[in-house]
Amino acid sequence: MLLAADNLQITDKTIEQALKKMDPGPVQEMVVTCEKAGADIIDINTGPLGRDAEKKMAFFVEAVQDVTDLPVFIDTANPSAMEAGLKASRKKAIINSFSLEPAKLETILPLAKKYNTDIIGYLLYPDSHVPPDSTERLNIAVELLECALQAGIEKEQLILDPIIVPVTWQDGKAQALEILQVLRLLPEVMGFDIRTAAALSNLTSGGNIYEKKLFLERAYLPMLAVSGLDILLVNMLHTATIKLAKTCKMFSDEKVFSWEEI
Amino acid sequence: MLLAADNLQITDKTIEQALKKMDPGPVQEMVVTCEKAGADIIDINTGPLGRDAEKKMAFFVEAVQDVTDLPVFIDTANPSAMEAGLKASRKKAIINSFSLEPAKLETILPLAKKYNTDIIGYLLYPDSHVPPDSTERLNIAVELLECALQAGIEKEQLILDPIIVPVTWQDGKAQALEILQVLRLLPEVMGFDIRTAAALSNLTSGGNIYEKKLFLERAYLPMLAVSGLDILLVNMLHTATIKLAKTCKMFSDEKVFSWEEI
Repeated sequence: MLLAADNLQITDKTIEQALKKMDPGPVQEMVVTCEKAGADIIDINTGPLGRDAEKKMAFFVEAVQDVTDLPVFIDTANPSAMEAGLKASRKKAIINSFSLEPAKLETILPLAKKYNTDIIGYLLYPDSHVPPDSTERLNIAVELLECALQAGIEKEQLILDPIIVPVTWQDGKAQALEILQVLRLLPEVMGFDIRTAAALSNLTSGGNIYEKKLFLERAYLPMLAVSGLDILLVNMLHTATIKLAKTCKMFSDEKVFSWEEI
Repeated sequence: MLLAADNLQITDKTIEQALKKMDPGPVQEMVVTCEKAGADIIDINTGPLGRDAEKKMAFFVEAVQDVTDLPVFIDTANPSAMEAGLKASRKKAIINSFSLEPAKLETILPLAKKYNTDIIGYLLYPDSHVPPDSTERLNIAVELLECALQAGIEKEQLILDPIIVPVTWQDGKAQALEILQVLRLLPEVMGFDIRTAAALSNLTSGGNIYEKKLFLERAYLPMLAVSGLDILLVNMLHTATIKLAKTCKMFSDEKVFSWEEI
């Protein structure tokens, strides 16, 4: 399981300000912190970006890649910002994300072919609603793969995100278990060991009790790990959660256990 | 997932002394603490007990049942101490444990029939060695069920323990994953939803770094929970671990999530 830092979010005030002023400092400081904490990937979540979207995205990607060689997820729904990010990228960039939404199939998916990058597909309905169970998500997974293949993308370029939902939803707990089921069944349904990604913080959105949120995340994280999740989007500043994630990773690596590892 | 307190162990100095002096105080204090912490079951782990084994076991079981209505596991390899414990028991007692070891099949297993109690079966070879993988454990599970049925015990009385081993063993990490596989496959292999139990602390025996042990336990616990474990033997004084266990339980109960639960 790889760890993708979700710390570069436009909803973070420091990042928002840095982007407004085109000041790379705070962005780079966060990237360095995340890499030190053990991030394997940096998620660049800019949102739609508004005016000068292309320029802002290019600035952001360059700022990140000036201080790290880690792969980046470019995380925006704005296709021209996405393309600007891919153009600016000198290292490995991954598109985050497309779905069955017609606009995304038309404008985002072809960029994976054009720039020969990996791409994350969300297991959502074409109208962006969340499916109620694992069966529906698996059907969508098959459709996403078909769309990707039709767009000339190799199956190995596709990464699927089953979309964790807030546990506070009416069916939130059942959904959390359905998502684990999806992770377990995907390789068999898809016929190959397709990669998966998921954002841990989605589970606790809306919760306002910090310590309880962390407890909930720490219960769910090893369940995701053991169900076969390949990439966890996670806040790299949550020290105990990250330590837990690394301990989970340890179970699946080849080495003999040693206490130094954790 | 139910929580069975593993705190009443003869290897604990306070408990050892209490038993020596036949002083119920420290035993009962621990039982009350464990029940307050959320224990569903109390494991009474006396070891073989030596001289006056029957008397000591009866004293121990009575001391526990004087302060709690919780079911108890009677955890000894000494058949006459086991029988004394079952006789002394006025509430629900469960035999912990038998295995394919010939002496246990002959002397412990029939007690489950005689006293109409549930009984835990260890997934071990007849010579008490640990099987190397899930396939071997599942074969042993089938054999244990056959032995139990031949002894006139109902299949619903049987609880299986896959035997967690120290992660520091040469194949410790692989074994930890094999055990999760056993938990997932048992219902299908056995043809009914057979109950399972496992002792979390086995994973970290031999580790001398307390904080690291707890981290390792907290990574593995949700994996056990999501793999379908029914009864977790656990130290009820490990507050954060117990909170995590309760958070894991929350995913599988029927209620809508609320932040008050964790």
